[in-house]
Amino acid sequence: MKRTSDQARASERIRATAAELFYRQGIRAVGVDELVRRANATKPTLYRSFESKDELVTSYLRDFAAAFWRRFEEAVDTHVGDPRAQLRELFSRSAKRTLKPNYRGCALTNAAVEYPQEAHPAHRVAQQTKREVRRRLYSMASALGASEPKLLADGLTMLLEGAYVSRQIFGADGPGASVDRLTNRLIDSWPRRKLKGRPVRRNSRRPSGRARVSRSPRSAVRKSPTGG
Amino acid sequence: MKRTSDQARASERIRATAAELFYRQGIRAVGVDELVRRANATKPTLYRSFESKDELVTSYLRDFAAAFWRRFEEAVDTHVGDPRAQLRELFSRSAKRTLKPNYRGCALTNAAVEYPQEAHPAHRVAQQTKREVRRRLYSMASALGASEPKLLADGLTMLLEGAYVSRQIFGADGPGASVDRLTNRLIDSWPRRKLKGRPVRRNSRRPSGRARVSRSPRSAVRKSPTGG
Repeated sequence: MKRTSDQARASERIRATAAELFYRQGIRAVGVDELVRRANATKPTLYRSFESKDELVTSYLRDFAAAFWRRFEEAVDTHVGDPRAQLRELFSRSAKRTLKPNYRGCALTNAAVEYPQEAHPAHRVAQQTKREVRRRLYSMASALGASEPKLLADGLTMLLEGAYVSRQIFGADGPGASVDRLTNRLIDSWPRRKLKGRPVRRNSRRPSGRARVSRSPRSAVRKSPTGG
Repeated sequence: MKRTSDQARASERIRATAAELFYRQGIRAVGVDELVRRANATKPTLYRSFESKDELVTSYLRDFAAAFWRRFEEAVDTHVGDPRAQLRELFSRSAKRTLKPNYRGCALTNAAVEYPQEAHPAHRVAQQTKREVRRRLYSMASALGASEPKLLADGLTMLLEGAYVSRQIFGADGPGASVDRLTNRLIDSWPRRKLKGRPVRRNSRRPSGRARVSRSPRSAVRKSPTGG
């Protein structure tokens, strides 16, 4: 019994230490030896909990993705039924996050860069999450009545990714902190399917059938943030 | 004499092999042993030309930056005196590049992610180049008469970085290929200092003094792409 809980605690320390070091230094920069030393653990302990470094890495990325989605849903839940306000909230929070002292971008983006092979499990976790983010942005762009919602979602996706990576490229005074103002400009100047220049607010009714018959990603139907 | 040219040829093979492997697999993923083996060279040969792997890495990044600037100037030179057309040309070429089969984003961005420590020479090369890109985009935004040219340049910078990284995150059907359409939308809907909704074209005259007294990056004055 005692051994089990010792192992559980050591495993938890390894997980926490890996999360901190991988995020701050990069994944490939951190070896297993350094990791167990910093976690006050041993290699056998690590390998009882994680089959390999790759498994520890994917576990770290899944935890990061889960935390990302908690933040995402929390932002979205502040303005249920109002996709314009949801997007404003999301990007306002993103802009603020880029200014945090220890901010080093999105761990998933960084992992995709460090592990370019698409078949690598780290790359797959990153890619799956990003595709879902893109779908959710599409869903919101569509719900606010944007014409060409896929194109607008692509713009929001690139601005978001650009904000993530800009902190590392430019340091603290990079463009990332402006991502909220820029997405607001882009969205507010974007043509709408119905009322021009004003967001279409609705709770249950869809403004037109166009978004439904277009090549919409699944989640636009499956998981609409407006509950529509 | 023969030994010198042998060394020079081996050094060139190492440089070319490093460029290919670093770009495709990531820098940290490629060890010196693999590198010399693939270059049909030896470690002593490598270390006669490059003091360390880090020096080889910064040499690779400087070469990449030089090639980037050649492409950049080539695009800009097609429309001297017309910043709107210059930006269109730059982003049109960027969008096309993201679709190339072996495209893996910007080597400088990737290096900044792999080497997050700002003091690392690889990080420094990346950061210096990116800051100059941002300054050039600012200079063009300013020259086309945009109000808040710094904010517009930040948007262009983030869209560009987002396009770079999106290929790795999303694969070939990522948003990167739309970066030209999105920057066109952003620029064309952006308010101008003078004529609203139309780019201000000029060769030598500045439309107003505002950009000069604002907190403009040096190069807006030092190195204007319009020659103004």
